[in-house]
Parts: sequence; C-alpha cells; structure tokens
Amino acid sequence: MLSLRILSLGTYLPQRIVDNAAMLASFPELSEQDLERIGVRSRHEAGEDEDVPAMAVRASRTALERANISAEALDFLLLVNWSERRYVPDIAPRVQQLLGARRAFAFDLGCACAGFIYALSVAQGYLQNPRFKRGLIVASDYSRRRVRPGSRASLLFGDAAAAAVVGSNVAGGFRLVDYELGTDGSHSGLMDVDADNYLVTHARQREVNELAVASLIRAGKNLLARQQLSFADVDYIVPHSGTAGIQGMLAEALSIPREKILTNLPLVGNVTAASIPTALDHFLQIGTLRPRQRVLVLAVGVGWQFVAGLIEL
Amino acid sequence: MLSLRILSLGTYLPQRIVDNAAMLASFPELSEQDLERIGVRSRHEAGEDEDVPAMAVRASRTALERANISAEALDFLLLVNWSERRYVPDIAPRVQQLLGARRAFAFDLGCACAGFIYALSVAQGYLQNPRFKRGLIVASDYSRRRVRPGSRASLLFGDAAAAAVVGSNVAGGFRLVDYELGTDGSHSGLMDVDADNYLVTHARQREVNELAVASLIRAGKNLLARQQLSFADVDYIVPHSGTAGIQGMLAEALSIPREKILTNLPLVGNVTAASIPTALDHFLQIGTLRPRQRVLVLAVGVGWQFVAGLIEL
Repeated sequence: MLSLRILSLGTYLPQRIVDNAAMLASFPELSEQDLERIGVRSRHEAGEDEDVPAMAVRASRTALERANISAEALDFLLLVNWSERRYVPDIAPRVQQLLGARRAFAFDLGCACAGFIYALSVAQGYLQNPRFKRGLIVASDYSRRRVRPGSRASLLFGDAAAAAVVGSNVAGGFRLVDYELGTDGSHSGLMDVDADNYLVTHARQREVNELAVASLIRAGKNLLARQQLSFADVDYIVPHSGTAGIQGMLAEALSIPREKILTNLPLVGNVTAASIPTALDHFLQIGTLRPRQRVLVLAVGVGWQFVAGLIEL
Repeated sequence: MLSLRILSLGTYLPQRIVDNAAMLASFPELSEQDLERIGVRSRHEAGEDEDVPAMAVRASRTALERANISAEALDFLLLVNWSERRYVPDIAPRVQQLLGARRAFAFDLGCACAGFIYALSVAQGYLQNPRFKRGLIVASDYSRRRVRPGSRASLLFGDAAAAAVVGSNVAGGFRLVDYELGTDGSHSGLMDVDADNYLVTHARQREVNELAVASLIRAGKNLLARQQLSFADVDYIVPHSGTAGIQGMLAEALSIPREKILTNLPLVGNVTAASIPTALDHFLQIGTLRPRQRVLVLAVGVGWQFVAGLIEL
C-alpha cells in the first residue's frame, strides 16, 4: 500500500479573541483558578463572515501556498465538520467552488473530533488509485455556535479551521505510517444536541473523561502493537484538544511526562475536528516538532469514535 | 489496485404502501394521466418504527444472510443518508451497535443521491489495506419526511434502505470495474431545505432535468472513455431513480432504447441514496440482470455531485 504524505498544513483562526479576562467578566462566580483548571487561556470566535466554508477556504489557501500547488491541481477535497449541518447540500462542494478546485471531487465527513484522522484514512484509500495524486483535507468547525451562551462549555470551545495537502509518491512532508479506526455505537447516546442545537452531555464529566482516556489509549495501543512499538517509542503524542482533565489523565495513565503531550488547548480551546491539524501546524511552526520525530495523534469523537495515527516527520 | 466486489445486496421497504389510488384521493386536481407522467405507481412510507437506523439494519441483515457472513466479520460499515441528520452523533455508530458489527469502524456519508457510488469508492480504498477484508455499505433514506405533505414532491419520493456487502480478493459477486466521481459546487444553491426542513428547488424543473441528464452523461462518458468503452458496450444503465423525465431524456440523449435503462422508479418512487442498490437488487432477483453483463450505474446528487460506476456481473 502506498503511504500518504502530509505535504503541508495551514490554519485559520477567527479574528475575534475571547480571553479569560473577558470570560471572567461574563462569569462573576468563577475565579482565575477555575479557568486555569479548565486549561484554556483564550479562544477565537467566528464572526458573521467566518462561516464554515469561509474558514475552510482560508486555511486551505495557506496549506496550498505552503505546498506550492494550485487548487486546480487537487484531485479531491474532504471537508471535516460537525458544527454546521443541513440536510442538503453538503458543505464540501461549496468549498470546492470557493477555492477554485474545479477538478476535485468533494464531500463531507463528520465523526466529530475524530474526523481528521478518518479523513486521512479515506484519503490514503483514494491515493492507492493511480488517478489521484493530490488531495486536500480541511477541518472547519465553529463549535462555539453549538454551545449554549453563558454555559461552562463556552469556556472550553474555540472556532478554527485547518487544512492538510496530502499526496503519495512524493518526497517531502510527513509520512502517515499507520492509522487505527474504532467505533463503539453502544456509547452513541453519550452526547447529542438539544432542541436549540446546543451540545449536551448525558453523563457525568468524570465518566466521559474516563471513557475518553481509555478509548485514546485503546486506539493508540492497537496501532503501536501492530507497528511493534510502545508509547515510549514515540516522541510526542498530539491528542485532539478535548479537555485539560483528559490530557492530564492520559499522561498519568501512560506514565509519561506531561511535556510529551503536545496541545494547543490553552491557546485556542477545544477546536474539535480542527484540533489535531492546528496543533501539528503550531508545533511545527514554533520548532517543537522536528524532522525524524515520531508523533502519535489520538482522538475520540461523539458517536462513539476512537482513532489514532502514527506520523513520521 | 485490488478490485472491489459486491458480494450481496439486500433491500428493506417500509410496510406501508401509498399507491396512486390513495394519491388521487389526496390530490383531487390530478388525473391518472398526471400520475402516469410522473412515473411512480406506488411508494413505501416509513412508519414510526422504521427510522433510518432501523431500515438500515433490516436491509443489512438481508445482505449479510445472502453473503453468508456474520455482522461480527465486518471490518467497516458506511452509512449513506441525506434525509436524517443531526449535528451529533452520526447515525452509522448506532447501526453498527444495532447490527452487532462490533469489530467494524463506522461512519456516515452524505452526497445525497450520489452517496452509494461515493461509498463504493471509499470502500474500495479501504479494501486496499490488507487489514480490511469485508465491509458493508448501507443507504437508508426516508425522503418522504423531507417533502412537504401535500406537495407534488410527495408523489415522487419513497422511503427505502438497501445494503451491499463488499470485499476484495474473493470469488463470487460482481466486480466494480471502475468508478468516476465529480463535483461542481457552482450548483450548490440549486436545492436545499426550507425552515421546516422540507426539500426546495431553486430552479425550474426543466433546468434541473437538463443539468441532471448532462451530468449523468458526463460522468458515464468519463468512465467509459477511460475503459475504452462506449455506451453501446454496456448491457444496462441503472441510473439513480430521479424522475421519469430525466430517464426519458437520458435514453434520448444517448440514442439508446428505453429498455436499456433499468429503473424501479414506478415501484418504489425516487428512493434517493438507496435507489441504485434497490434497483440492482430488484433486477437481479427477477432475472433481468444476469452473469457476465456490464452495468453502468449513474447518479447525480444535490451538492452538485455527478458519479458513475461500471459493474461486471
């Protein structure tokens, strides 16, 4: 099987920043320590002109520029999103048009926070077909529209888009060594949306955290075992942003130092489907991630989904 | 690249049948000739206990029995649907659980009426991975819930689910020789849903029909040219159900006899994502489709999507 290579990444963060000072003004009952515990210092919030397709296009343009390829060269475009959804039409064709990716077929994937890794697996499948050389995966979520204003969830979630140009049979970029996909529909009732389309959780936070950590470890273990590797063999773990609680529990459960878990949660909040590509992009840009490192990306998603990817930089 | 083989098909049609006599009672202004022109004689309508996952499970069980494999043997499950959609969770994990496909990863695909062919292409990608041997594609739509009661559209649409067990490196079944996928987001505004989530079309029916026919032909031509074949070389064309008008225009544009276009539109109405697999299943069961025939499946979908698949029986 041909490897998928991530040739470039690109991020778009909305203009408006909601920092903790602003949050404290809205939540007089909370202290700075409370916010510290949640683990998010600022979040970006999409404005009127920053809908899901617009954010997707901006992240995609950055990724295309960095890969030095034109939108017309794309064979396919996968849009990952949970926070905007209608019966018809899908969002991907609109992004295809706005971007000018006129040769690309384009469709949507959901899978909530696990969507980016699912999209990598679908893209790798298409890249086995000699007709398809280059694709674009773009995750774009304005999850703040899906949390009730004034709720604790509004402290956690941020809006963002991130894109990855992928290809096979090329030099450069980062190789997807392997992926692991898992679904357990017995937890499909864990979270959904209420009549106002705001996210609701039907379990205690502690139970959700425990399921999330067990699921992340299960996905990672399955992948690493197949590659005859252990968690000690990877340089960094990049989990989907989730919560600071889940990340702390993950480090503890794996007996690894907290610094091995790279997260941009404090900077942007939980940016759901966009969290893994925005984090990879950020830590590559600031030089934490460097050539020849092994990075394990892990995500869980409402559904219930648990997925992993091993990337060689 | 390994071929995908469709090992079996299975259909589920809701219990309740709405025939033209019932329709004439509800539409006193219409004559039998009007209904004849629409081309649908009866449609099935999903009841309370026939939601999208329930219909999907019933169609899937039939397909699994016919392929003589258990749900536990499935490596993946792709649910195709446009008519039921929430922000979270996706529907596929619920079907995975109800079916007992506990090893399978599972996710949703949209693409409206083009979804089944998209799912075949995604499944073929996964089957290139030696870890995955068997998958299930299931299309399940209750489109009658998405048309305004009493509207002309209620004459056209029917509810149905259809499943296909797919695999590679196996004998038996039918081979997917090639597929073609196309998207043109410049038509993304053609159809959507109104505030009541009922389907609306923002163009004249004649324009939609012309775009549909041109798109079906474009997808088919692209595929056939790559295989060095012409429309004359295929035994049958199975288009997604669409409308009788589109099917008539397609036969005329291709200068082929109307009998080469196989459709179950009169029996079940436009069953959207389920239309190609229900039609294949029907015409295999009644013996019209036979070994060694070449069948070209064609679909367009809101988005705008235009897709084709060539199947060797």
